[in-house]
Amino acid sequence: MLITQGDLLKDINLPEDLKKLRPDQMHQVCQELRQYIIDMVSVHGGHFGASLGVVELTVALHYVLNTPDDQLIWDVGHQAYGHKILTGRKDKFYTNRIYGGISGFPKRKESEYDSFGVGHSSTSISAALGMAMGSLHNGEKHRQHVAVIGDGALTAGLAFEGMNHAGSINDANLLIILNDNCMAIDPNVGALKEYLTDITTSKTYNKVKDEVWNLLGKMSKFGKSARDIVAKVENAMKGALLSQSNFFEALNLRYFGPIDGHDIDHLVAVLNDMKNIPGPKILHVLTVKGKGYAPAELDQTKWHAPGLFDKVTGEIKKKIITHPTAPKYQDVFGHTIVELAEKNPKIVGITPAMPSGSSLNIMMKAMPDRAFDVGIAEQHAVTLSAGMATRGLAVYCNIYSSFMQRAYDQVIHDVCIQNLPVIFCLDRAGFAGADGPTHHGAYDIAFMRCIPNMVVASPMNEEELRNLMFLAQSDSFQAGGEAITLRYPRGEGVMPDWRKPFSEIKVGEGRKLKEGEDLAILSFGPTGNEVIKAIETLEPEFSVAHYDMRFAKPLDEALLHEVFEKFTHVITVEDGCLQGGIGSAILEFMVDHGYSSKVKRLGIPDRLVEHGEQYQLYAECGYDAKGIVETVRSLQIQGHLA
Amino acid sequence: MLITQGDLLKDINLPEDLKKLRPDQMHQVCQELRQYIIDMVSVHGGHFGASLGVVELTVALHYVLNTPDDQLIWDVGHQAYGHKILTGRKDKFYTNRIYGGISGFPKRKESEYDSFGVGHSSTSISAALGMAMGSLHNGEKHRQHVAVIGDGALTAGLAFEGMNHAGSINDANLLIILNDNCMAIDPNVGALKEYLTDITTSKTYNKVKDEVWNLLGKMSKFGKSARDIVAKVENAMKGALLSQSNFFEALNLRYFGPIDGHDIDHLVAVLNDMKNIPGPKILHVLTVKGKGYAPAELDQTKWHAPGLFDKVTGEIKKKIITHPTAPKYQDVFGHTIVELAEKNPKIVGITPAMPSGSSLNIMMKAMPDRAFDVGIAEQHAVTLSAGMATRGLAVYCNIYSSFMQRAYDQVIHDVCIQNLPVIFCLDRAGFAGADGPTHHGAYDIAFMRCIPNMVVASPMNEEELRNLMFLAQSDSFQAGGEAITLRYPRGEGVMPDWRKPFSEIKVGEGRKLKEGEDLAILSFGPTGNEVIKAIETLEPEFSVAHYDMRFAKPLDEALLHEVFEKFTHVITVEDGCLQGGIGSAILEFMVDHGYSSKVKRLGIPDRLVEHGEQYQLYAECGYDAKGIVETVRSLQIQGHLA
Repeated sequence: MLITQGDLLKDINLPEDLKKLRPDQMHQVCQELRQYIIDMVSVHGGHFGASLGVVELTVALHYVLNTPDDQLIWDVGHQAYGHKILTGRKDKFYTNRIYGGISGFPKRKESEYDSFGVGHSSTSISAALGMAMGSLHNGEKHRQHVAVIGDGALTAGLAFEGMNHAGSINDANLLIILNDNCMAIDPNVGALKEYLTDITTSKTYNKVKDEVWNLLGKMSKFGKSARDIVAKVENAMKGALLSQSNFFEALNLRYFGPIDGHDIDHLVAVLNDMKNIPGPKILHVLTVKGKGYAPAELDQTKWHAPGLFDKVTGEIKKKIITHPTAPKYQDVFGHTIVELAEKNPKIVGITPAMPSGSSLNIMMKAMPDRAFDVGIAEQHAVTLSAGMATRGLAVYCNIYSSFMQRAYDQVIHDVCIQNLPVIFCLDRAGFAGADGPTHHGAYDIAFMRCIPNMVVASPMNEEELRNLMFLAQSDSFQAGGEAITLRYPRGEGVMPDWRKPFSEIKVGEGRKLKEGEDLAILSFGPTGNEVIKAIETLEPEFSVAHYDMRFAKPLDEALLHEVFEKFTHVITVEDGCLQGGIGSAILEFMVDHGYSSKVKRLGIPDRLVEHGEQYQLYAECGYDAKGIVETVRSLQIQGHLA
Repeated sequence: MLITQGDLLKDINLPEDLKKLRPDQMHQVCQELRQYIIDMVSVHGGHFGASLGVVELTVALHYVLNTPDDQLIWDVGHQAYGHKILTGRKDKFYTNRIYGGISGFPKRKESEYDSFGVGHSSTSISAALGMAMGSLHNGEKHRQHVAVIGDGALTAGLAFEGMNHAGSINDANLLIILNDNCMAIDPNVGALKEYLTDITTSKTYNKVKDEVWNLLGKMSKFGKSARDIVAKVENAMKGALLSQSNFFEALNLRYFGPIDGHDIDHLVAVLNDMKNIPGPKILHVLTVKGKGYAPAELDQTKWHAPGLFDKVTGEIKKKIITHPTAPKYQDVFGHTIVELAEKNPKIVGITPAMPSGSSLNIMMKAMPDRAFDVGIAEQHAVTLSAGMATRGLAVYCNIYSSFMQRAYDQVIHDVCIQNLPVIFCLDRAGFAGADGPTHHGAYDIAFMRCIPNMVVASPMNEEELRNLMFLAQSDSFQAGGEAITLRYPRGEGVMPDWRKPFSEIKVGEGRKLKEGEDLAILSFGPTGNEVIKAIETLEPEFSVAHYDMRFAKPLDEALLHEVFEKFTHVITVEDGCLQGGIGSAILEFMVDHGYSSKVKRLGIPDRLVEHGEQYQLYAECGYDAKGIVETVRSLQIQGHLA
């Protein structure tokens, strides 16, 4: 579909084109850029609200800065569509997030204008400070270093660590732009958010001012000279309260703002000023997520990444899904935790800023006192869960697999070393799809199974997820003191009729799904469904046994003895990295017990796999049904019918 | 050695004994407790300065709180010796940090008074908040939840995440005690530290006050009623500047203090008051690390954990070491980075709060513009390093192995996904010794080798460490864009004559140290020295080949083909977890290439190994020389001479 470009935008391919325009043309550029983003995302999909919110900021930054020599870092990167369009990627923007196309996030390999690759939040301040210190080291004093970070991302500890260090490097030329829209993907939470509202509305200042004013008001009787002094006192107070003593100034970051992030003229002027202010500083910019597209302004969470939509009516188009009525795994989690919590008063739920993404919002609505969004703060989410577990609660801590990398020490140090039975639900495990390598949950099997006191499981389908969740909160499991990781993928499962009664699974118990004679395939999690499809193709040529391991740790040793006693050829399949994954765990078992079958491990290879639909990535790595069939045929097994 | 106990202390075994005493006896209790700590640590070793600094706070807390029902969490735990002595462990305190003895840190398994196990910093606020929320959930409103955290630990992002959440839970009964002594192990750094000094000395307040006072001073001419108003204005200002607008109040934590942490009477009074103040709050307490022992007050870093000393003269006793003149690995790192940096201007060094522990302080002294202590902020240290690497710097980021767990996502997301050749030096890899399971660097081989674009290496001795450091900064390696992990253990190596000229190592190249016929032992890192000793015992009974792998990733495939083509029996040895470690990597290679030797993997088993001297832990896990000998003999190999 051809997207029309505005009169100015059509000639802008790089920031140097933008710079040729007059300042008074920036209004029109913003309008055209906003329209282009709306047009593009409505038919090609992707993240939406965040980029609309920073159209003016994006144009102003590229107008004022000398990119790519100046370093511009977009925190998270959901908001960088305008940046991509203005920096050489306008004409291939229709390939955004598509297999083989451009990435949905800034990426160093993609463009020299993408100073730092992002995807996860809260990295920008540290990265920009590193660059600023690097420029100092290299004697490049002219270079600007700008981090654009949202108020949501500011709640993560990494951002604080960056600010705390930045505030002590007085000669670092660093500008932090706080893009304050009161939102993460869901509404932002936490005390700092209230504080930002407070300074934005000058609440504290007004309160103290009123108090002082009341006192000083009594001075008015002393005449004009007294009133003049009163005015000066007020100014000093204002300076003190809005600046010297504010949160950011406490960290020795010069604080400017708040200013209107949709006033392009003012933004250009202020950013020009900022270039000449030395040292670490922060500019507080107020923006509206979804700005300029009414439906997106009204429901900001829904329009964070709405999928395709009719740009005129604002109607979001329904997605075509493979299994029309199978639910998403996340929704099975969301409904099941409520169902379990209704019976077990010890259950609580935790999410770090992913209520809608994890579907914990179902519980937050049904049981607001028992489900908590702690903001973008994965480390805290885990240690908080550990604290709760010491008080006897059964805590479901739901964190995307790739975000769990941010709380790894807390899992080891605060949960497993202390024998606290926290239940980790790792959504988006395995290939995350269009979000690409930053979001693939590739490593969790390896990094979780090496921790003592940790059980690692993955359900093959919705019913299994329910039963594993049922197991995790049971008194007997909780009494054992082991933590448990339940990993499941992004998107829909395979069971339209998923809401079945709970049945009991024992820890470490796999299951034999099918007998066979020629070889055994051992699958972990939903890859088992690909194995089923593969076997349909392979039989009767090969007689294939199929085992669903269910647990990467502890392994089902009885099952594995059966497998290695019987089969010369074994294939393992997992939606995770091959280095140290469940395939390796099975090799460890095999060699430890003196078996020597030929084992072929399928999973994510030791390289970065880019973005694409999940099925495309499974195919690329050879563990979709077709890849499994090909692997079996390549093994030169003496087939059943041969 | 019998340690005399003071008249009051000898009858105190539990907090209930302390509570029987009169308030005016607390002075004497403090005096006796301080003396007991000095007496104990001088002859048994351990952490010192931190516990001396909180003697009064410890006594006051146990006098006022109703422990163990009230939850008391000591952040990090270096400062908890007084707490241990007052809570049932006085008589076994002489076993502190000794194999089989009590832990140097609070530990839930050890005592019900240890509400939360610690070791790594900055967990206490999140944990205490989790407990407070748990108590709310359980309807236990009477319970107090107190986190004692140092100003050093406050710089870590996790502490900020905890405060940000705590400030939004208005009904959580949470008291954060900021134990402000301006120190981590080394002097604390960062902007927040300056801020704490600022509010402690009321600098901002005084500045604004002066300004306002000058103005208001002019009002004095209007007489007494004007002066009264001026006084009231000043009070309002003071309230605003010291309280409502301060850093902590910005996070909605009620702020109290600062108060003198060595005034036991005042502490008891204030803590009693605090019990009745609802919601999340922070009490700022000023203490002196090493308080009451003059040498420790004077050199606080040295006396953080001084080893044994003469308590009268303050002379620290020299440690008896196995290899009298072999240097510590950390010192080889510290001297070698300076040596390399003198030739390569791109080199910089980063440490998160471990200048003395990592010996980066050698470079910080020699090249203050090129070596940086970023505070307790591992995540930031890694992302900052990534930012620096984008500007062409060769960054040595030195983080203890177990602390690297705190920056795992940053390694994946900010370094490896972006192909940035950051050099990670993981000190204290493998068993850390007396610090125990929180500090053992057990998992790094597994969690690092599963990341694409990451090389994982370990030197067998000092010379190898130097050569690997030389490799990592070379132009050819840096140009490749791969990150590298160099893991090495705590303590001394084996080469008195270590300062040799650099020689070139190729990435992924192992070395054959010894030919053999009956079996091959493949070692990784310093475990190779145990293998050498084992072989001395085993030969001539067995003819043992010995290979030093050097790299866990990439593996030396030529070497492994040689091994598996020749040997039926192979042993792998590593100072790391068996799940997913280099032994598993070698199994992956073996099975992928169709070999089927019998492989026995030696390393850290899948359980928590407690504290002790490193050699004791190697022995416990069977990979010291003796364990290796026993393993070889148990394999029922047809021996060379048999």
